[in-house]
Amino acid sequence: MPQDAAKRVCLVIGAGDGVGGALAKAFAQDGFEVVVTRRARHLDQLQALADEIAAAGGKAHAMGVDARSEEETVALFEHIEREIGPLEVVVFNIGANVRFGIRETTARVFTKVWEMACFAGFLAGREAAKVMVPRGRGAIFFTGATASQRGREGFAAFAAAKSGLRAVAQSMARELGPKGIHVAHVICDGSIDGVFSRENIPDLDQRLAENRVLKPADIAESYVALYHQKPSAWTHEMDLRPWSEAW
Amino acid sequence: MPQDAAKRVCLVIGAGDGVGGALAKAFAQDGFEVVVTRRARHLDQLQALADEIAAAGGKAHAMGVDARSEEETVALFEHIEREIGPLEVVVFNIGANVRFGIRETTARVFTKVWEMACFAGFLAGREAAKVMVPRGRGAIFFTGATASQRGREGFAAFAAAKSGLRAVAQSMARELGPKGIHVAHVICDGSIDGVFSRENIPDLDQRLAENRVLKPADIAESYVALYHQKPSAWTHEMDLRPWSEAW
Amino acid sequence: MPQDAAKRVCLVIGAGDGVGGALAKAFAQDGFEVVVTRRARHLDQLQALADEIAAAGGKAHAMGVDARSEEETVALFEHIEREIGPLEVVVFNIGANVRFGIRETTARVFTKVWEMACFAGFLAGREAAKVMVPRGRGAIFFTGATASQRGREGFAAFAAAKSGLRAVAQSMARELGPKGIHVAHVICDGSIDGVFSRENIPDLDQRLAENRVLKPADIAESYVALYHQKPSAWTHEMDLRPWSEAW
Amino acid sequence: MPQDAAKRVCLVIGAGDGVGGALAKAFAQDGFEVVVTRRARHLDQLQALADEIAAAGGKAHAMGVDARSEEETVALFEHIEREIGPLEVVVFNIGANVRFGIRETTARVFTKVWEMACFAGFLAGREAAKVMVPRGRGAIFFTGATASQRGREGFAAFAAAKSGLRAVAQSMARELGPKGIHVAHVICDGSIDGVFSRENIPDLDQRLAENRVLKPADIAESYVALYHQKPSAWTHEMDLRPWSEAW
Repeated sequence: MPQDAAKRVCLVIGAGDGVGGALAKAFAQDGFEVVVTRRARHLDQLQALADEIAAAGGKAHAMGVDARSEEETVALFEHIEREIGPLEVVVFNIGANVRFGIRETTARVFTKVWEMACFAGFLAGREAAKVMVPRGRGAIFFTGATASQRGREGFAAFAAAKSGLRAVAQSMARELGPKGIHVAHVICDGSIDGVFSRENIPDLDQRLAENRVLKPADIAESYVALYHQKPSAWTHEMDLRPWSEAW
Repeated sequence: MPQDAAKRVCLVIGAGDGVGGALAKAFAQDGFEVVVTRRARHLDQLQALADEIAAAGGKAHAMGVDARSEEETVALFEHIEREIGPLEVVVFNIGANVRFGIRETTARVFTKVWEMACFAGFLAGREAAKVMVPRGRGAIFFTGATASQRGREGFAAFAAAKSGLRAVAQSMARELGPKGIHVAHVICDGSIDGVFSRENIPDLDQRLAENRVLKPADIAESYVALYHQKPSAWTHEMDLRPWSEAW
Repeated sequence: MPQDAAKRVCLVIGAGDGVGGALAKAFAQDGFEVVVTRRARHLDQLQALADEIAAAGGKAHAMGVDARSEEETVALFEHIEREIGPLEVVVFNIGANVRFGIRETTARVFTKVWEMACFAGFLAGREAAKVMVPRGRGAIFFTGATASQRGREGFAAFAAAKSGLRAVAQSMARELGPKGIHVAHVICDGSIDGVFSRENIPDLDQRLAENRVLKPADIAESYVALYHQKPSAWTHEMDLRPWSEAW
Repeated sequence: MPQDAAKRVCLVIGAGDGVGGALAKAFAQDGFEVVVTRRARHLDQLQALADEIAAAGGKAHAMGVDARSEEETVALFEHIEREIGPLEVVVFNIGANVRFGIRETTARVFTKVWEMACFAGFLAGREAAKVMVPRGRGAIFFTGATASQRGREGFAAFAAAKSGLRAVAQSMARELGPKGIHVAHVICDGSIDGVFSRENIPDLDQRLAENRVLKPADIAESYVALYHQKPSAWTHEMDLRPWSEAW
């Protein structure tokens, strides 16, 4: 398939109603052809996101993929590179926030959270490295959370997975930076506007009006700015949090 | 089974030729009845360790256990509590150091390293919490490594697992400290004398003579000192490294 | 003095040939009227920078100020607010890199380095807070270095000062964020192109061509992007380093 | 002056009613001849501490010294080495906890806190290094606080000083470890029993009974244990906090 030399493709793994969707829109706006993925059962919503991007003049592809599956992830990257274009940006954006006391944390929960928030990120990062290293360019961004830095009561499973993902990002940054790949880990510290917040924060509208809750579109702007950093001065770790957060 | 009221039991999970073996000896010397575990295929060596402790006047039990198996781990704790005595100290001491570039890291390696160095630690910590919380006392110690703090080139799998284990330890410390359980994470930073070092460090004897390599017995002394800390001043994180290490 | 309602003033304290100069140019380009300061004895070079900005269509003021002097710093802020316009951005950008073994570090060196790299930053931050808090807006950025995070052999004086500055930035971020002021600390990790590098790195041109040395203009772009972050998602700490840096 | 070959001297700088006094007693108990210092105006209390140690069978010297004075500090070390014996352990234990909003922090307060908590520590560490390096042995310990790791609202002055002290400790550890000197930084995280706590924590007795407040004697035990670590496995950073602290 002949490709447009100037085409740049951005893959957002874990594109829901929140940060992932906003990232897809922001990179589409920046001129990328975007691919958004999510579990197949959410394909309807994902297609709606792609349609919204298309309606705004962008190009977007929605694909139902289980990010925890090595087979599906490998196939996803092969398909994009063969059928759509060269991946310039890959964002891994799957969270899996759960809270249980240590004695109530089942092996199943501990494993599932790790599969979604850490193992899937490793798979995505590895496949991105495989296609980007030969070209000596590209960016791989990981979305972190407060729990990426430190464990807290009730967060053994989530913090273990997010800390593991951050270690993957750090290891990749050190290995791939010298090969021309920009790897960064962005910690979104605080509540983020989205379905979960709408259901769990009673005064969300008030908080949104006061910028006391992370807005996905504001987060996405900083990812696009990261992408545009010059290679003499790349950021590998940064935090994003509402102005009102006193930590 | 009637139990000696004063009996204190220490379980060391992952008792090989290095730190684990030294920990078992040190806690036995400190008056504990010790239980040492390792994969069943190494049971001969494990029994030799138990015999050595017994010969020195201590009491030790060797048990072949796959620490990655929830079933075997649950059974181990039940057996100890029922047949041997109340667990006062549990040390999780399994490492799984491997080094691969990110593109050469298979899903199998990434998963195995996590199962051994992180998931097994979660299982041990959870089971320890279950028996200790009702008694409002006990100590749970985790052995960390340089990779517990930060990823490095070639260490995505190992750093993800060790960072995850540290997050488990931190989460447990915050939850269980107020319940009277002392949870600590000890980072052993540098090469440790043992089978691996003997095979991979040519001038090991010279380095040992100069204290340039971590000696398991010296490490173990600090774990025993940790155990003897008074509850008004517990350590949750500390590092151990050879005097000669300039970081 | 009547003021243009839309006028935004940016103050860069420590504007030499490197990062400070580039920051002044970048914020001028972004529409700010800039004030650049440096020790009075370098006023010629500082004026040349202001002239360069003016020649490019910007507005710039060069002022000789000893940033370690409370009296001069207070007077500087008063002058700007009264004669030029409301400060919207203040960047503290003074370093003081020295290297001495601990036994060779004189009290005079230890103190001077602290006065320049930490105390002066506190003064600037405090005066900025005084004028910005009543307006409920503004940004205060501090330039950090590798030594901001950790001490190293030979860097007791420099690391103490830079770690102290980072602690000032963190304390201010927590206090002033809820008051609408964006406080951030940016760690520039690696050699930076400038007079010092030109004299000390033999193959600097080669390194610059390969983006292996931080370029002031590239650094400055990220400060301007920081300024444009939306208040729901502010960064408080980020690093900048050459792509080739393996840490 | 002829010296007992086996004599070991421990200097505690900043020996008040709390941690410093307990450290002096603990090291005296461990067989050290101790020297305790404090501002001259508190010499009475200091002498009472020395008398208490003597009454318990130890040897102690009380000296009024302004630790911020290079001249007095240099003279102190010379006097001890010449008249008392070789310094084996030096503990720097001066805090200076104050809390002010950034706009209310005067230059005088910021400077005084740094002089006491950072500059004085540098002086002590440097003088200790000078006498210990030629002997290739000795231990230098610094007492840190929560603010050593991170700034917080209202703690710009204190956090800057304590973060600076930690950077001094880290730099010294890296430089002096290979020379046989054990440098460690101990973070005491939480309220400590003493005059200040007695005046500011209403339910202190209750908290002490429940081990919810750091007890100086418990802290001191861990410093003595640090001193007894073997050189193949030295700790450079550790925290101490009450069991009840959830962080």
